[in-house]
Amino acid sequence: MSAVYPTDPNLEPHSTADETEPAGFGLERLVFFSDAVFAIAMTLLVIDVRLPELGGQISDGELADALGELWPRIFAYALSFAVIGGYWLAHWRRYLMVQKTNEGLARLNLLLLGLVAFIPFPTSLLGQYGDRPLTVAFYAVVLALAGLAGAACWAYSDRRGLLRSTVTRAEYRASLLRALAAPAVFLASLLALPVVGTTATELLWPLVFPAQWLAGWWVRRSSRPAEPDV
Amino acid sequence: MSAVYPTDPNLEPHSTADETEPAGFGLERLVFFSDAVFAIAMTLLVIDVRLPELGGQISDGELADALGELWPRIFAYALSFAVIGGYWLAHWRRYLMVQKTNEGLARLNLLLLGLVAFIPFPTSLLGQYGDRPLTVAFYAVVLALAGLAGAACWAYSDRRGLLRSTVTRAEYRASLLRALAAPAVFLASLLALPVVGTTATELLWPLVFPAQWLAGWWVRRSSRPAEPDV
Amino acid sequence: MSAVYPTDPNLEPHSTADETEPAGFGLERLVFFSDAVFAIAMTLLVIDVRLPELGGQISDGELADALGELWPRIFAYALSFAVIGGYWLAHWRRYLMVQKTNEGLARLNLLLLGLVAFIPFPTSLLGQYGDRPLTVAFYAVVLALAGLAGAACWAYSDRRGLLRSTVTRAEYRASLLRALAAPAVFLASLLALPVVGTTATELLWPLVFPAQWLAGWWVRRSSRPAEPDV
Amino acid sequence: MSAVYPTDPNLEPHSTADETEPAGFGLERLVFFSDAVFAIAMTLLVIDVRLPELGGQISDGELADALGELWPRIFAYALSFAVIGGYWLAHWRRYLMVQKTNEGLARLNLLLLGLVAFIPFPTSLLGQYGDRPLTVAFYAVVLALAGLAGAACWAYSDRRGLLRSTVTRAEYRASLLRALAAPAVFLASLLALPVVGTTATELLWPLVFPAQWLAGWWVRRSSRPAEPDV
Repeated sequence: MSAVYPTDPNLEPHSTADETEPAGFGLERLVFFSDAVFAIAMTLLVIDVRLPELGGQISDGELADALGELWPRIFAYALSFAVIGGYWLAHWRRYLMVQKTNEGLARLNLLLLGLVAFIPFPTSLLGQYGDRPLTVAFYAVVLALAGLAGAACWAYSDRRGLLRSTVTRAEYRASLLRALAAPAVFLASLLALPVVGTTATELLWPLVFPAQWLAGWWVRRSSRPAEPDV
Repeated sequence: MSAVYPTDPNLEPHSTADETEPAGFGLERLVFFSDAVFAIAMTLLVIDVRLPELGGQISDGELADALGELWPRIFAYALSFAVIGGYWLAHWRRYLMVQKTNEGLARLNLLLLGLVAFIPFPTSLLGQYGDRPLTVAFYAVVLALAGLAGAACWAYSDRRGLLRSTVTRAEYRASLLRALAAPAVFLASLLALPVVGTTATELLWPLVFPAQWLAGWWVRRSSRPAEPDV
Repeated sequence: MSAVYPTDPNLEPHSTADETEPAGFGLERLVFFSDAVFAIAMTLLVIDVRLPELGGQISDGELADALGELWPRIFAYALSFAVIGGYWLAHWRRYLMVQKTNEGLARLNLLLLGLVAFIPFPTSLLGQYGDRPLTVAFYAVVLALAGLAGAACWAYSDRRGLLRSTVTRAEYRASLLRALAAPAVFLASLLALPVVGTTATELLWPLVFPAQWLAGWWVRRSSRPAEPDV
Repeated sequence: MSAVYPTDPNLEPHSTADETEPAGFGLERLVFFSDAVFAIAMTLLVIDVRLPELGGQISDGELADALGELWPRIFAYALSFAVIGGYWLAHWRRYLMVQKTNEGLARLNLLLLGLVAFIPFPTSLLGQYGDRPLTVAFYAVVLALAGLAGAACWAYSDRRGLLRSTVTRAEYRASLLRALAAPAVFLASLLALPVVGTTATELLWPLVFPAQWLAGWWVRRSSRPAEPDV
């Protein structure tokens, strides 16, 4: 249903030694385009860290107060930057193991990018209304969906034979586990939300990073091919 | 009228084996610059998905209502992201078949990018005034023009001999058909607008995606070189 | 005063066959970074094409009027997009002839990028106060300065021996002429401003494009190496 | 604790001649992603250079006054563009000496990017409230932290053996010195702030550039391997 580069049988008859270059180019372009979307989404987050209109006549104390009230927005900036940064890092790591692409992967990747580029909106909400359960839940759902879209790209790449032949089953499964770590934390926090309240739920989210680290540790442990599985 | 890289006869006398590299570099740079404009236009769309100034004192119910009223903007975001994403995908696919560039193609490509970078404006209008025929028509016209500019780039590349020699006539025509699918849907929706109204017209637009898919299926069918044309 | 890659004598003793790759990488990175700044500056222009706050209750006629009043902003968008696009095209064309870079060129290029990234501000002014001589003069000066910075980069590259050895004197001078075409039109329009008024001055600016074309024609004419200079 | 590409012992058993390509790709992608964040942060700075809402009826004199009042914002734009540009230049220069990357460097680099992408906020504050000690101190601290993060990346690259083998000890130390020049100026200006006031402190900041130049001169002096150290 979707043409595979460079091994699309339809294109094969024309294929020359030269033909591998545009295929590599196709993957490289997919990746750099993704990088641009990640980078812009991360950099746009700062637009919401700004003072309300105060005029030039306010006192130093009022300015200090206004800056102090920005802490929830700075927290939202730092959290979203770190989570999207983590998703970018996962994308980076996974595409070291992807050998080629097809249109299906390009489409799934666009879905991932559409979710990533949407994150500035829930981040802005969180910075402004971080004390409301609705906002907290909305943020957790959008960030979980973006993580799940990344996992879907990874699973799809495997199904369609787009991974390098050197990627083992253990590595594939461990990377999938790692891709699911952040969505798992965000979705689990939804269960905690009615019990512990908004602030405590938000403080659970940084667990995303040790969760990814644990999964990453698992990746490395399981990719040691010589060790017997205990 | 426009110099061709790398085969410009004026540059030929200086050309060495080395000379092919800057030419490939010229095409690569054109493509990555285009990717940046596509990516920024797509990511800027989210700027219009934002709450009006409500102050911190609103109730949870009022916040929920305000979020509910954002659905037209979220629809506009998703639609424009998907359409520009589809145009990017077409650009990506076509430049796998383009072998070299010249200044004329670079200029036409700038026209395409100028239209793509303009899309956040009609998208913003659609999110705010999606119930007005003027807005709906304006959106359809701008998105159709961007699609037509892409088709013009493709036709120009063929006319000036910039395509890889492996691209068949059937592939060229099928890709052109595919490039025209989205503009055809948008322009046809203009005819439907006075009859079915704004909402129904907007609901026609997602037909862009099956229309592109159908044209894509045609691309693959017609690129099977061994099959006799029935 | 500034190290040259890859031929900096200070680095020479360590240089291996491998060493040429990071040098090429340095030039490529300079160019792609420039592309990103150009692309963002061009895409941010659309942010100023937006309706004032009108509320949802306005009539279709009022909406049409409000859109009609945006034409100066759409003109400013199109003009600035085309001029920056032309500057990007000049950058693209020139760096096909640049073989290596040094820190001095990287710094001069940052000056060029700082001026290009500033263009959204005079563009915004022009869209809002295009009927004021001050605004028109400010726009012309900023765009001329950006063009002159591009010409300075080109002259510097030649002085420091950063151009490919295949670039002839005639090509160098013709490219310099072409780089000066847009600044010349903008600065000349300043002389016309007190005589013909703001609107006529703005209508002179699209002469930038035929002026560049003429200079480009001169580039090609003078780069025919076999023809005797008459 | 973090996998090294391409020399991660865990990945070694699968490694083929082919395997070096994804590793180079990993470094290249890290660098181009960084470029995108730098470029966007620099280009977003212009968003704060804008007139307040004045309406279309103001006189030419009022417009001139309003533009005149923008000088602090234009100064803030130019200063931040130049400092981030200088940080980008340092990043560019350093990655010519980095041979490979690992996840730890990618994470540290994300910290650097998170600080760089945050700079538009203190810049906006400086343009609006540049006469307040709090604002001046906040700006100096954020810019110093971004510079220190860059130095940390450099020191980490050395510790983990990620630098090219041709980089000498003298070059490494001189580059580190250069990386610390801008943070030193910003932090020293904090000491001057209570004594000399906000305006004089801001006028100290452009010393960042000669300080970097001096450190750069030191880099080149110390990298001449044949000369005896006097």
